Amino acid sequence: MIGRLNHVAIAVPDLAAARDRYARSLGAQVSAPQALPEHGVRVVFVELPNSKIELMEPLGEASPITGFLEKSPSGGMHHICYEVEDIHAARDRLVAEGARVLGDGNPKTGAHGKPVLFLHPKDFDGCLIEIEQV
Amino acid sequence: MIGRLNHVAIAVPDLAAARDRYARSLGAQVSAPQALPEHGVRVVFVELPNSKIELMEPLGEASPITGFLEKSPSGGMHHICYEVEDIHAARDRLVAEGARVLGDGNPKTGAHGKPVLFLHPKDFDGCLIEIEQV
Repeated sequence: MIGRLNHVAIAVPDLAAARDRYARSLGAQVSAPQALPEHGVRVVFVELPNSKIELMEPLGEASPITGFLEKSPSGGMHHICYEVEDIHAARDRLVAEGARVLGDGNPKTGAHGKPVLFLHPKDFDGCLIEIEQV
Repeated sequence: MIGRLNHVAIAVPDLAAARDRYARSLGAQVSAPQALPEHGVRVVFVELPNSKIELMEPLGEASPITGFLEKSPSGGMHHICYEVEDIHAARDRLVAEGARVLGDGNPKTGAHGKPVLFLHPKDFDGCLIEIEQV
């Protein structure tokens, strides 16, 4: 069912500093910062030949990553996103196998304009998983 | 400098259960368990079209992930591995930019038989980064 590893998201306390480290120390190609106010984050993408890393800092007062950074002030790996062809079929299979979908159980429009859902980290070894229909 | 995203490693408390979840709930292709006693872990690989996920549980009494699982008993994302062409050149660049290499600063032979080094998570937003020469 799951296809490509779409991205790994890392929550960072200072996006400009993180962007600079990935570009300078790791020699990576990094996009310009992009504000996603409806998702409460500002992001840059580290472009790799086969996937990408999303570095994100909180934007606004109700950012969904504020709590994460309160617990881990220096940042950390936040979630992994896998691609699927049919998000409703994926959701139905996951629920049938006992996995919990966050929110009301229905796909939302994700940060990249595609239908996404998030799975409860307790059902996947403490790892927050995003499923994106591409 | 960094090339492909080689793998994302997830520490899990119960490898058989985790393997089953990735195969059944996520419909992923998962390898047979493999003991790596010299690295203190038992692993399976979740094979994705563009990368892979390494699920690992502690093996032996001096496993390097025992401490991680004591802090996060349900598991969690442990590290991200990027490929480089020349690990000594990569190390020299990283050190020149102020990043700290774990251990004695020299590449070791990693779990896949290739030269690897690990970077201090405090220098990369709480994310443990492995660099592997391929």
